[in-house]
Amino acid sequence: MASQFGVLFRVATWGESHGGGVGAVVDGCPPRIALTPEDIQRELDRRRPGQSEIVTPRDEKDRCEILSGVFEGKTLGTPISIFVKNEDARPEAYREMQSAYRPSHADFTYEAKYGIRNWQGGGRASARETIGRVAAGAIAKKVLAEAVPALEIVAYVKSVHHLEAVIDVETVESQAVEQSIVRCPDPKASDLMIELIKTMRKEGNSVGGVIECVVRNVPVGLGEPVFDKLEADLAKAMLSLPATKGFEIGSGFAGSRMTGSEHNDLFEMREGRVTTKTNYSGGIQGGITNGEPIVFRVAFKPTATILRPQQTVDVTGSSTELMARGRHDPCVLPRAVPMVEAMALLVLCDHWLRQKAAS
Amino acid sequence: MASQFGVLFRVATWGESHGGGVGAVVDGCPPRIALTPEDIQRELDRRRPGQSEIVTPRDEKDRCEILSGVFEGKTLGTPISIFVKNEDARPEAYREMQSAYRPSHADFTYEAKYGIRNWQGGGRASARETIGRVAAGAIAKKVLAEAVPALEIVAYVKSVHHLEAVIDVETVESQAVEQSIVRCPDPKASDLMIELIKTMRKEGNSVGGVIECVVRNVPVGLGEPVFDKLEADLAKAMLSLPATKGFEIGSGFAGSRMTGSEHNDLFEMREGRVTTKTNYSGGIQGGITNGEPIVFRVAFKPTATILRPQQTVDVTGSSTELMARGRHDPCVLPRAVPMVEAMALLVLCDHWLRQKAAS
Amino acid sequence: MASQFGVLFRVATWGESHGGGVGAVVDGCPPRIALTPEDIQRELDRRRPGQSEIVTPRDEKDRCEILSGVFEGKTLGTPISIFVKNEDARPEAYREMQSAYRPSHADFTYEAKYGIRNWQGGGRASARETIGRVAAGAIAKKVLAEAVPALEIVAYVKSVHHLEAVIDVETVESQAVEQSIVRCPDPKASDLMIELIKTMRKEGNSVGGVIECVVRNVPVGLGEPVFDKLEADLAKAMLSLPATKGFEIGSGFAGSRMTGSEHNDLFEMREGRVTTKTNYSGGIQGGITNGEPIVFRVAFKPTATILRPQQTVDVTGSSTELMARGRHDPCVLPRAVPMVEAMALLVLCDHWLRQKAAS
Amino acid sequence: MASQFGVLFRVATWGESHGGGVGAVVDGCPPRIALTPEDIQRELDRRRPGQSEIVTPRDEKDRCEILSGVFEGKTLGTPISIFVKNEDARPEAYREMQSAYRPSHADFTYEAKYGIRNWQGGGRASARETIGRVAAGAIAKKVLAEAVPALEIVAYVKSVHHLEAVIDVETVESQAVEQSIVRCPDPKASDLMIELIKTMRKEGNSVGGVIECVVRNVPVGLGEPVFDKLEADLAKAMLSLPATKGFEIGSGFAGSRMTGSEHNDLFEMREGRVTTKTNYSGGIQGGITNGEPIVFRVAFKPTATILRPQQTVDVTGSSTELMARGRHDPCVLPRAVPMVEAMALLVLCDHWLRQKAAS
Repeated sequence: MASQFGVLFRVATWGESHGGGVGAVVDGCPPRIALTPEDIQRELDRRRPGQSEIVTPRDEKDRCEILSGVFEGKTLGTPISIFVKNEDARPEAYREMQSAYRPSHADFTYEAKYGIRNWQGGGRASARETIGRVAAGAIAKKVLAEAVPALEIVAYVKSVHHLEAVIDVETVESQAVEQSIVRCPDPKASDLMIELIKTMRKEGNSVGGVIECVVRNVPVGLGEPVFDKLEADLAKAMLSLPATKGFEIGSGFAGSRMTGSEHNDLFEMREGRVTTKTNYSGGIQGGITNGEPIVFRVAFKPTATILRPQQTVDVTGSSTELMARGRHDPCVLPRAVPMVEAMALLVLCDHWLRQKAAS
Repeated sequence: MASQFGVLFRVATWGESHGGGVGAVVDGCPPRIALTPEDIQRELDRRRPGQSEIVTPRDEKDRCEILSGVFEGKTLGTPISIFVKNEDARPEAYREMQSAYRPSHADFTYEAKYGIRNWQGGGRASARETIGRVAAGAIAKKVLAEAVPALEIVAYVKSVHHLEAVIDVETVESQAVEQSIVRCPDPKASDLMIELIKTMRKEGNSVGGVIECVVRNVPVGLGEPVFDKLEADLAKAMLSLPATKGFEIGSGFAGSRMTGSEHNDLFEMREGRVTTKTNYSGGIQGGITNGEPIVFRVAFKPTATILRPQQTVDVTGSSTELMARGRHDPCVLPRAVPMVEAMALLVLCDHWLRQKAAS
Repeated sequence: MASQFGVLFRVATWGESHGGGVGAVVDGCPPRIALTPEDIQRELDRRRPGQSEIVTPRDEKDRCEILSGVFEGKTLGTPISIFVKNEDARPEAYREMQSAYRPSHADFTYEAKYGIRNWQGGGRASARETIGRVAAGAIAKKVLAEAVPALEIVAYVKSVHHLEAVIDVETVESQAVEQSIVRCPDPKASDLMIELIKTMRKEGNSVGGVIECVVRNVPVGLGEPVFDKLEADLAKAMLSLPATKGFEIGSGFAGSRMTGSEHNDLFEMREGRVTTKTNYSGGIQGGITNGEPIVFRVAFKPTATILRPQQTVDVTGSSTELMARGRHDPCVLPRAVPMVEAMALLVLCDHWLRQKAAS
Repeated sequence: MASQFGVLFRVATWGESHGGGVGAVVDGCPPRIALTPEDIQRELDRRRPGQSEIVTPRDEKDRCEILSGVFEGKTLGTPISIFVKNEDARPEAYREMQSAYRPSHADFTYEAKYGIRNWQGGGRASARETIGRVAAGAIAKKVLAEAVPALEIVAYVKSVHHLEAVIDVETVESQAVEQSIVRCPDPKASDLMIELIKTMRKEGNSVGGVIECVVRNVPVGLGEPVFDKLEADLAKAMLSLPATKGFEIGSGFAGSRMTGSEHNDLFEMREGRVTTKTNYSGGIQGGITNGEPIVFRVAFKPTATILRPQQTVDVTGSSTELMARGRHDPCVLPRAVPMVEAMALLVLCDHWLRQKAAS
């Protein structure tokens, strides 16, 4: 179950960064949804390496194949199997990892857990694993587009290191996000972020940041009251992404420094609909959507791979120094934006199906 | 499934705040674990209302009964059913809620989701639901105490509103936490927090804050590599608690403002064990424990119930004003400390069993 | 998970035969379904001991309480907790079981699995565990009665030992079943069966038999294509009942002795609906209902408890002789009829909800 | 979930008979198990078409690829993805199925359920889907071979139509099974069965039969007490196979015609081990293995595809006649033997892992 996600819209991903390839099987997709490889490829292209000058130059085309579950351009209701070959794998770049643990990577913990690991790359801990998630998210997007046509999801880079963008969650559009190679729709902040990331690359260093995501026109009633609160499933989804360190919804940590009279979202009628004056709740109350925009943020740590010598230990327990040689991102955030959207879409699509059954 | 949690150590909670009672069924508890009602009662008493002058005076003894799964003081390996009666329910205090939605409560979303709700209290959204979690957490604690005797878990109030405590995660002890009625082991901060909460109560207002939790002497290898990363399951567990708005592990959001060379936790040998010089990872790498302390923080919003008139709408869609009369907490954090520990214990116990199977 | 059943309509049962009581928690029941304790009690009364002269005289009223999930006579969509106290427990009747294993009971295997067991009765292996199932089945019945009003389910005793009844699956009604204390709607066979069971009781012996169940007016499209075929879930449901040894659907084992040209159910239109001339398929094709009656049979072994001295071994591994003294059924079938119906209803209700989500 | 099986050793299969291929993803396989493509191919070859003169001549090599989860010949503990291309697909043979429903196939029910189907073959209802199961079963076999080296599993054709073999469950060996192209280890019965199947083929007809399976040297304690009884999971596993109509364990339906004094398996010590004199229980008591051989039987109906004109209806609801042209098996049993073994191995491996966690 370690590699499965969702209750009714269920995704199983598989594959190591260095091996035959990576993929996903989506079980529970409703039938008769229009779906082409291009629908999936479009999202994979936003995730793939080599897409701009500030991401890893690993040259993976990440071409996806749909092996099952689709017939004459429509989903069958049966499992959809997606396959992406690994092409530009260079295991020799990882030779040192066979014997030494890279700091803040998963080499040591995988070895400790399994007593074995594929040292020719990051294995399942590699960002390549997220290809299956992004592909599955693209399918969820198509399902929701038919079920809830008005629904809009936009994720973007809110901050890189100390650089924070100013963005209006009510109006921000994907198009503006995609015009920035760092995927920050505030042009001024975007320029500064790109500059910072380039500097970091030159210095062999890396930076972290925060991705914000807004979902507008969400149906009311999604989410379950206790353990499967919508924000709980979103939190799990986000913290399951590589390099994430935090999640907050609505007012988040800042909300912990407010009083009740400031924080409560007063109800009012607007266009015949129950709405709230403010949205500190982030669109979810008691675990269930209230129709206001869902707004959440995800903290990403700086990429662990840096091109500097670092102290570590090897598999025999001796001290050693390690100098990474792989091709990596000085900042994961630009490529993480489609991952955040994909995971949010998986959660929403799953809960939309669950609510269909429950209501 | 909405009310079930865990894969192998599986908890199902049930019960509304106003009804026959609340409870939990724990399925998957290993056999032959010593367990008495007192083991559970001890934790419930830390959660129960009326325990101090800064929490709600609702007078619930919250006496638990073990109805099954235990024989002659030992678990049988079969489901353990825990039952706590509701006693001091005063549905009349909630009369207004029948027709109007309390701001930032779940009245509106439950109505939207189900087309029906038990308006005589918070229903499943009430903090009473967490009784089942705390009871189940007490059982998980007993299991882990036999399996991993050195394991220590301590949660405490790290901040209330703008008041932040200074606490050493390496050495903080439960005893120090329990000496403070606000459950903050920094005596100076504790006093200020108590004063602030009393002021808030007088003003009919409320405050939020942050709970921090540390788990020491965790075995290496717990957690699954992809979707069920340990931090992902912790995030879900915490965001499933009422009133939570954020979760962060290790460096958290602050980590997003660091560089890789600052953030990486260099490996070194200490007492024959692979350890890290720093612990920005928060004890988890690639979703799997590395043996360092797990450190995470949970943001709680200010209690939604405030004793002030508030604007809202009623079930017919008309504007109205609502003035709460129930007995509530001006700050949920003191009683939320055992909830945070309980949820963390459920996650750890579940993953400990999973790792037993996997290794 | 050992004690949980269903995907969306999910039942968790708990309780030993000798302990605080037994119960069930039903999670995933749709909201706004009319439900009273009487709806549940009616089915429990069909299952309870002491109901006639041919079943065990253990005097359990099996009065159920609904502790949660229902408000003003309607389901809330939240977990429904059902509780039935154990009253006429006589643990002293089981004293010998503390040290010796009853043949063809679960004493030995529980001891082998758990290293502990509640020897004061059958524990979870007791037929009392099925109270939770029958209660949950009664709830499923209410859900289906609103969703698919035409649906009819009738189970009955098809055979006891060598006595086989003649029953028309197209027309048999519950009323006719309930008129017979052995729950066989063929009056002639019923009389012979009752006589045989009385003889068995006198001889301190027991008999088995077969229960047949028919479900009419099933919607087309229920069941999933691969592992969760409707007949697969029915088979699991039935083989999870105590004392069952076999399951067959439609033509069953007899179908294995037919040729394709005899066995194929030819399609034809009837009243504007696709139907089949014959129903060897038993209402399910490719795991999915085709609208024809579902017909299946379940084989029950003779009750293991017989009032005769039997050779066995004790917990120290020595040979011994055991003579049962408990109050037991010479034939479980009359009381198993509502269990079979309950389990079938759980499967149907779960798949009906699943199909709602999927279509 | 429709296409997923197992709790800890979890298999997801995917693929239609006519499409890119079929496959399986196995999640939860323990690490460091030796595994090569040949281990899987060996079992697939027993299942594949064209292997003998009495099975379908469809020419599929069914060559499997392991795409992930294995490194240097050992499992990694991560998902194992198996892929088998479809090669000899001839969709034109299925042209008629586009508009008409084949009797006793799943064409009508898939259409009714999904409103769409891949009519170029049996889709997910095709026996090709079982490739993923057999591949996963081969992996389970390797896991169990390391964990329980003495465990032996042997399935074989017990009967075809009215022809029943005489086989000793205590001694039958796989080698004897494989020497017969019909996979019946009783040479005399085997010859008669082969002759009968050839006659059926000539007549364009088909026959069913019964497969028996014995598992010897099973550890005691496998299986869960209530819903996940080992026989319940075996029943589900078997009834999820295409063309199955019944399942029985131990005494099965014949046991329903016995008395308790005949049927009870008396305990006795043998070689220091608790054993039973007889084995009417079929190796399982109270859902849990007792160490005696597990013995069960599965009924298969005659193949639905027969080469004779048959009355049916088309998608517009008009009567029509259909004459199959595809390449099919006159009797599925020879190829179903490895499927039965595979499904049994999946159940046993899953429960073995579950028991590891639970004990």
